[in-house]
Amino acid sequence: MEKIKIGLLGFGTVGQGVWKTIEMNRDELLKNTGLQISISKILINNLEKKRDIVPGAGVLTTNPEEIFEDDSIQIVVELVGGTDQAKSYLEKAIEKGKHVVTANKALLALYGKELTEKAETKGVQLRYEASVAGGIPILQSIQESLSANRIERIMGIVNGTTNYILTKMSREGVGFEDALAEAQQKGYAEADPTADVDGYDAAHKLTILAALGFKAGIDFQQVYREGIRRITPTDIEFAEELGYAVKLLAIGTEKEGKIELRVHPTFIDKDHPLAAVKDAFNAVFVEGNAVGELMFYGKGAGDLPTASAVLGDIIGVSQNLHHPHPQAYKLDFSNSAKTVVPMEDTQTAYYIRFMVKDRPGVLGRIASTFGGNGVSLSSVIQKGEGEGAVPLVFITHKTKESSVQKTIRQIKELEAVQEVANLIRVESLS
Amino acid sequence: MEKIKIGLLGFGTVGQGVWKTIEMNRDELLKNTGLQISISKILINNLEKKRDIVPGAGVLTTNPEEIFEDDSIQIVVELVGGTDQAKSYLEKAIEKGKHVVTANKALLALYGKELTEKAETKGVQLRYEASVAGGIPILQSIQESLSANRIERIMGIVNGTTNYILTKMSREGVGFEDALAEAQQKGYAEADPTADVDGYDAAHKLTILAALGFKAGIDFQQVYREGIRRITPTDIEFAEELGYAVKLLAIGTEKEGKIELRVHPTFIDKDHPLAAVKDAFNAVFVEGNAVGELMFYGKGAGDLPTASAVLGDIIGVSQNLHHPHPQAYKLDFSNSAKTVVPMEDTQTAYYIRFMVKDRPGVLGRIASTFGGNGVSLSSVIQKGEGEGAVPLVFITHKTKESSVQKTIRQIKELEAVQEVANLIRVESLS
Repeated sequence: MEKIKIGLLGFGTVGQGVWKTIEMNRDELLKNTGLQISISKILINNLEKKRDIVPGAGVLTTNPEEIFEDDSIQIVVELVGGTDQAKSYLEKAIEKGKHVVTANKALLALYGKELTEKAETKGVQLRYEASVAGGIPILQSIQESLSANRIERIMGIVNGTTNYILTKMSREGVGFEDALAEAQQKGYAEADPTADVDGYDAAHKLTILAALGFKAGIDFQQVYREGIRRITPTDIEFAEELGYAVKLLAIGTEKEGKIELRVHPTFIDKDHPLAAVKDAFNAVFVEGNAVGELMFYGKGAGDLPTASAVLGDIIGVSQNLHHPHPQAYKLDFSNSAKTVVPMEDTQTAYYIRFMVKDRPGVLGRIASTFGGNGVSLSSVIQKGEGEGAVPLVFITHKTKESSVQKTIRQIKELEAVQEVANLIRVESLS
Repeated sequence: MEKIKIGLLGFGTVGQGVWKTIEMNRDELLKNTGLQISISKILINNLEKKRDIVPGAGVLTTNPEEIFEDDSIQIVVELVGGTDQAKSYLEKAIEKGKHVVTANKALLALYGKELTEKAETKGVQLRYEASVAGGIPILQSIQESLSANRIERIMGIVNGTTNYILTKMSREGVGFEDALAEAQQKGYAEADPTADVDGYDAAHKLTILAALGFKAGIDFQQVYREGIRRITPTDIEFAEELGYAVKLLAIGTEKEGKIELRVHPTFIDKDHPLAAVKDAFNAVFVEGNAVGELMFYGKGAGDLPTASAVLGDIIGVSQNLHHPHPQAYKLDFSNSAKTVVPMEDTQTAYYIRFMVKDRPGVLGRIASTFGGNGVSLSSVIQKGEGEGAVPLVFITHKTKESSVQKTIRQIKELEAVQEVANLIRVESLS
C-alpha cells in the first residue's frame, strides 16, 4: 500500500465529486490499485460558505501557498476553471515539483504546449483525461492502447449541452431558444451559453484530441468553429426526411500530413453510431489505420463521471511516481511538419436551404449556378407553393468549400431568391 | 529509443496482422512510444508453405525452443489458439522469464488464474487486450482508466459471427441456417460454428471481463450459456413489433457481492446504444458507480484490428520492463468472497412464444397459469386464426427464472398448447 496525498484547487461540482468518489470507493481504490488516496488540502474562495461536504479541520484553505509549500502533497489537481489563474496555479505546482492533473480544456487548448514543456523540464507528469468527454477514457486509449495506429480521423459529440438542445429540438420540434431555455433551467447550460452553443468548448476539446491523435502542434485559432444558433426545426425536419440526424460535431482528419479541424453542425447518416447519441451524452469516434473504426460513448460531464476520469489520472500518475514516465504523456504539442488545411479548401457535402419565390424557372436558374461552379447535386427538395417564399433544399456531392461559398454568393443575387436560410455540412462517412 | 525483440508463436491471420502493422506504422510506433519493435522469430508448422509475407532468413522456425532459448527475445506473443499447446507454450515462456501477450480467450477463461499466478511468481507481465472484443481497448480501460469505480454491470456484444447472423436475419428475414451459411461463405463463421453460435466464445470473453471488472475469481463453468440456433424470423418480427432488437449478449452484473453471469439471446430496447451495433461489430457496455454508463464500440476481429490490440499490449509491457509492473495487471483471478447467482435465481423479463390451437379459453388458461405462479405480464400478442396452431406471445415483467420455468412446464401440459416455441430474456435497462 502506498499513501498518496493530493491537493485540490477548487471545490465545486467536480472537486466534490472527487471527494465523494474517494469516500464511496475507498475499498475498491485500495484493492484495484494498491493506493490509499487522500485529499490533504483544498483551495477555496470562502471559508464561511455552507457546504454539503465538510472536510476535517485544516483541510480547507484560502491560501494556495499552503498547497504548493506542503511537501507531503505529491499531486495537485486543478479544478478552478478559467485560464489565467488556473495557468499560474499549475505553473507554480509544477515549479514545486508536483505532478498535476487538470480537467481544464480551455487551459490545455490555449497553453497545452507551454504546460507540457514545463512539466517535462521539471520531470513531473501532467494528465488531463477529464478535459475531453468527461468520464470517457478517450485520451488514455489514444495515448496508450491505440499507439500502434496512425489515427486518421476523430469525430466527436463532445459537448453535452448542444447535444441536449439538438436532441430536444429533434424530438419535440421546438426552436433553438426554447430548447436552450430548458437546458438552462435543467442545469445543462450556463446563464451565458456562448462557450457551449457557439462551439468554443467543442473546439477546445478538438484541439486536445487532434494534438494527441495526430501528434501535432495545433493552434486553437486554426480550428474552424460554428455553433448551433442558426439551426431551426425546419432544417431538422429536412434532415430527417433525407435520412440524417443533426449533431454538433468536432471533426479532425489527417491525410498525408494535412490536417482538417472543424466544429460545426453536421448532417450525419441516421445509421451512423454517432446519430444514436442522445441528450447530454458524449461520444467520440476514432479511426486508426490498423484498428479501423472505434467509438467511445458515455457521460461527458457531471460530478462523479468527471471524478472517475480525474481519479483515473491520479492513479496513473501515482503508478509512475518512482520511475520514468511513459512517453505517451510527454506529448509534444509544439512542433509539427503538418499543416492545417484552410476551411475554404476542405471538402464535404452540403445541405443548403434557400427561401425562394415560387415562380417558373427559379429551380433551373439555381441548379445552373451550381453546375456552372462545378458543384454537383445529389438531392433536391422543393416544398409548398404560393405567393410567399417557399423552401428549396439542395444536397450537394462532396465539393470544395470555396466553390460552394462562391455559388451561394451568386445565387443570393438572383431576384427570386429571398434568403440563403441555412448551410449545413453533410459528413460523408465513406 | 529502446529496441524490443519479440517472438511470435503462430503466423496466421493475427500474426501476419502484427507483422503488417509493424511494417506499416514503423515511424508512428517509434514516434509515439520511443520503441523499435522487431519480430525476431516466428514459430510455424510448415516451412514449405507458401506465404504472402516472407520474413528474412532464420526468422521462421518450427522449433519453439529457438524462441524460448533466445535471450534477446523479451516478449513472447502466443497466437497459436487452442488451449493445451498454447498453455504449455505460455508456461515455458514465463518459466524463461519472458513477458507474454496473448489473444487467446479460451485459454484465459480456463487457465487465467493459473497463468496469472505463474507470471506473478516469475515477475513477468501477462497481457491479453486482444482476447476480448479485438481492437476495442476495453480491458485496459477497465483495468486502468476506470479503476476508481466499482463496476456494476458489463453487457456486451462480444461475438461478431453471431451479431452478423442476427443482423442478417433481422434485415432480410432469412432463417438461422441461411444466415449461417452466408456467414461461413464470407469467412465470418467457421466450418464448425459451435464456438460462436452456441455462445462458448462469448462466455469465454465474459469470464475475462467479469474477472477484471468485478475483481473476482470466475469459474467458466459458472457462466450460463445459450446460443442463437433457436432464434427464428418469427421471433425477430415479434421483437421488432414490440420495440426490441435481438442480440446475443454477454451479461455480467454485481450487486452486494452477488454476481450474475449469462450469455443468451436477448431482447433489448431499440433505443439502447447496443441495439445499433450491426453486422460483425462488437460493443461493450460498462456501468461504473462513478462514471455511469459507458460504451466501447469497434471491430472485434480481423487481422489489423486484433494486431492493434496485441501491439498495444507489447507497448504496455515494454514501457514497464524496467520497474515494478502496474498492479492492475497483477490481477487475481483466483479467490473471491463473491458468489455467482444460480441461473434459476436470476431475474429478468421474458418473451415467451407459444404455438396454440385457436380455441376459446386458451388465452385465459395460459394467463391464469402465469398469474398462479406470481408471474405478471406486461404484453400479450395473439396473431392469426384458423385450424392450425397460431402464435401467442407474452412479455412478462421482471421475474425469477425458476418461476417462469415452472409456469412453462405447467402450460406445456395444457391440451391446447402445441409447443413452447421460444423463450428469450428481455433485458430491462433501468
